[in-house]
Amino acid sequence: MKKENIIDELASLDAYWSQKIIGESNGQLFKVAKGIGEIKWHTHDDQDALFILYKGHLAIQLRTENIELFEGDMFVVPKGVEHCPKAEEEVAFLIAGLDITSNEKGGKPDWSYTENRP
Amino acid sequence: MKKENIIDELASLDAYWSQKIIGESNGQLFKVAKGIGEIKWHTHDDQDALFILYKGHLAIQLRTENIELFEGDMFVVPKGVEHCPKAEEEVAFLIAGLDITSNEKGGKPDWSYTENRP
Repeated sequence: MKKENIIDELASLDAYWSQKIIGESNGQLFKVAKGIGEIKWHTHDDQDALFILYKGHLAIQLRTENIELFEGDMFVVPKGVEHCPKAEEEVAFLIAGLDITSNEKGGKPDWSYTENRP
Repeated sequence: MKKENIIDELASLDAYWSQKIIGESNGQLFKVAKGIGEIKWHTHDDQDALFILYKGHLAIQLRTENIELFEGDMFVVPKGVEHCPKAEEEVAFLIAGLDITSNEKGGKPDWSYTENRP
């Protein structure tokens, strides 16, 4: 059994909007990711997505309102709710859910590696 | 839908080793707690317990080893594994699991409110 350090794991990421699993608990995955810019609007019909901000300012755009997240903030996007994360500058966060959702269906942009970012 | 701030929620706690639910995602509760001293050795047979440290130094004592947690560290105590958290000075953490586990069965000490601490 070993611990993980969330700050170190976030610092090790080399791609944007790409989740890395660092733990599992009661069937739920705990993943780290960083982001910049905007991904595509999308919905997870099968799972909630919980965000915990570690660095920066992340706007979770919903169709009805924007949720503005800063360091230490936690927010759950309920299953079935369309959303689109957006960050003016680089953000780093923990995300909990049943699967890796940073895929095409999960709104991942075509660019996601630093070297390809527009 | 609203966000919660983990730092503010931790600062608002007035009792030790008493979990406060601040969110729910995919059937799992996200809870904040603070602790000092040592609780009782105990086991959760029905659920894993995930810890994320926000302040201080928490030792998760296991029968085979001690896991030393500092700010940003994450550790999962698997279901069925006997453990006993211990902190020389006040610690603050997030804990995820299926229920509130800060009860007698969960190792909560007889003193838990600040004014009663030995």
